[in-house]
Amino acid sequence: MSALAQEFFASRWVQCPPHVSEDAGGLPAGFRAANAWAAIKPDHIVDLGLLVCDGPDAVSAARFTRSGVLAPPVLVTRDETVPNGLRAVIANSGNANAATGPDGMEVARAMQREAATALGIEPATVGVTSTGVIGVPLPTEGLADGVAAAAAALQADGADAFSEAIVTTDAFHKRATLTVQLPSGTVRLTAQAKGAGMIEPAFATMLCFVQTDAALEPKTAELLLSVCVKRSFDRISVDGQLSTNDTVILMCSGASGVAVAPESEDELRFGEALDALLRMLAIMIVRDGEGAKRIGRVVVRGPGLQAAERCARAVANSPLVKTALHGADPNWGRIAQAVGAALPGTAPLALDIAIEGITVCAGGAAVAHDAAALQAAAAGVEIEYEVNLPGFDPADPAETEVLFSDLSHEYVTINAEYTT
Amino acid sequence: MSALAQEFFASRWVQCPPHVSEDAGGLPAGFRAANAWAAIKPDHIVDLGLLVCDGPDAVSAARFTRSGVLAPPVLVTRDETVPNGLRAVIANSGNANAATGPDGMEVARAMQREAATALGIEPATVGVTSTGVIGVPLPTEGLADGVAAAAAALQADGADAFSEAIVTTDAFHKRATLTVQLPSGTVRLTAQAKGAGMIEPAFATMLCFVQTDAALEPKTAELLLSVCVKRSFDRISVDGQLSTNDTVILMCSGASGVAVAPESEDELRFGEALDALLRMLAIMIVRDGEGAKRIGRVVVRGPGLQAAERCARAVANSPLVKTALHGADPNWGRIAQAVGAALPGTAPLALDIAIEGITVCAGGAAVAHDAAALQAAAAGVEIEYEVNLPGFDPADPAETEVLFSDLSHEYVTINAEYTT
Repeated sequence: MSALAQEFFASRWVQCPPHVSEDAGGLPAGFRAANAWAAIKPDHIVDLGLLVCDGPDAVSAARFTRSGVLAPPVLVTRDETVPNGLRAVIANSGNANAATGPDGMEVARAMQREAATALGIEPATVGVTSTGVIGVPLPTEGLADGVAAAAAALQADGADAFSEAIVTTDAFHKRATLTVQLPSGTVRLTAQAKGAGMIEPAFATMLCFVQTDAALEPKTAELLLSVCVKRSFDRISVDGQLSTNDTVILMCSGASGVAVAPESEDELRFGEALDALLRMLAIMIVRDGEGAKRIGRVVVRGPGLQAAERCARAVANSPLVKTALHGADPNWGRIAQAVGAALPGTAPLALDIAIEGITVCAGGAAVAHDAAALQAAAAGVEIEYEVNLPGFDPADPAETEVLFSDLSHEYVTINAEYTT
Repeated sequence: MSALAQEFFASRWVQCPPHVSEDAGGLPAGFRAANAWAAIKPDHIVDLGLLVCDGPDAVSAARFTRSGVLAPPVLVTRDETVPNGLRAVIANSGNANAATGPDGMEVARAMQREAATALGIEPATVGVTSTGVIGVPLPTEGLADGVAAAAAALQADGADAFSEAIVTTDAFHKRATLTVQLPSGTVRLTAQAKGAGMIEPAFATMLCFVQTDAALEPKTAELLLSVCVKRSFDRISVDGQLSTNDTVILMCSGASGVAVAPESEDELRFGEALDALLRMLAIMIVRDGEGAKRIGRVVVRGPGLQAAERCARAVANSPLVKTALHGADPNWGRIAQAVGAALPGTAPLALDIAIEGITVCAGGAAVAHDAAALQAAAAGVEIEYEVNLPGFDPADPAETEVLFSDLSHEYVTINAEYTT
């Protein structure tokens, strides 16, 4: 693992696989990207990104927010494109084009059409993503000029430019360029993500674009993205809120000539790399969670996954747990409270709780522990909480995790004081 | 309605019924109460309350938190007392006796036994409630002396003393003494509640004790308390957290000689009074929500109650909605986001949203409105949000409400910075 790789994989909760290393090169072979200004943000601040896959293959997979209030760009990308055949993505920041109704659908389609025309491809092969303020019509006056400018500027090292176009108030960039050694050859894997910031003062959206020059069949791309999203972006919470616009898109150009065949060692290794990449990006989003100083990971083991999941979400989204995390306060009573609330009618619940490996509650009752050691452990940057529900099988527990940010003054400031 | 009554019923969301007025007298006939110091809190700060019903009847009803982590006092009161036959309550603050296991059960039973002995009644007629820090054994050295002192001090105007013993960091008292004119005669209704404050730095617990000199049959007491709790303490949220200790106890002495018969006009009028009393106390708890500056009421109308309930809770517990409320920011996009998250897979969701009667979103899309008027309305102390889900029947909607506090810097300070 190179020094560069160590910089990206900077969490105890994600290991860089031995066959993965960070490199400094731009996009994988077969991709170009660029940014431009489309007059959505003021003052010529970059607000439009264009990403195109030149092939030879163009296999894609995508995942979207589960919100019942889906933004038009999500609806267009989900419902009005060729499944697994995206060749390009047009992305904007500064306006989420959400809660904008039929007019918003037309705007999303116009973005798709403009990009397709500029690139000479079918509209149904262009994905659309937006992030920013909601409930405000997305201005389209500068769209055609912006798309034309971006299309003219497309280049193989355009990953950073594209990444710049999708950020809102992210405090730092969330992107990586990786080299992956597979049994069948070397491929590259790059990604650009955004999330956690707020804008004008709507809510955060999580976007992530992943590119590789490996050749994947559609079902392999689907499977790997599905599994890796479940283990990354599905396992994080800044404030328990679900955006209208969340989108993750994986695109595979095949330009490396290395095929990742189903159920091969290549697929396993590629999957490990994608998993580490997405988990680290997910942790970076949590770490950039508005005002975050510390991040927590709660692991819940139970007799069944559903109860474990409810408890993990309840702990991760408890404002009492989150403020305690912020204050470096190992107040485990708040964890007991959150678990109890998630499992009504189960009292008395003989749960075990440990913080940073120090058991503080066993069988539902407080146990003596080294308070000074606990206090010192709670002052770290990454804090681990473990909860065992009664009846779990130590040999084969139903286990789940959620990674979450703390709740700080800055969160309140960002969300309460920067008002319209 | 007297001036005093106007002071207690100080919310647009609760009307004082015409047959109810506030009075200055202590407990209803047939009750005595007192407080004492039992060495649970330091420095002789009052921490023990004793309330006794001298009859002639002693009919009670109780409601408890649904947490899976029930504190021993809740378990003892729920499982080890005569149903509907409580004659006394012993309550302490400073320690919740929660997550204390079998030892905690013995402590709760000791409290019950000490009170019973001092009052010369059966232990099974004594309810026990505790509030304060959790996971710390409740010290019992001062218990016997405290109970003896409280028993010796019992008096008919002891309501304020009792109320003082149950508060933790409540910023103001939540209590009322009401006179209720029923067709069959005049009865009195008093209550002492606590909640929203934090202690040592565990979590808030909501306790409420209600006394009346009306004569109620057990099933009437059960029915009225059940219905009124559902419309009051079940409809509030400070931070979406469920305590291990929440308890509401209604006690009826019958000393007025006025019987409230089932399905009578008396029952209706008494129920209206109890409803207004508990709703106002619930609103006072929200208003005292840690750091609260504004409180919100979200009303959701839908085709079914379950979906409406999910949406109302999601809005009330959204940190984005709560920070916007705090900042007087009429950011309705956050309401759309919360509703969308509560109803996954329903997109596109044609919801309507109004803030203080001003429609900002119709059929899922933004609508033009007077932004200045909206901004001014959002700066009030009580803000009303209305959400209509598609498919609701305007003539007979499934409708629900949740009252909630905002999320402020002071909440973070209280919960993050006052650490162990």
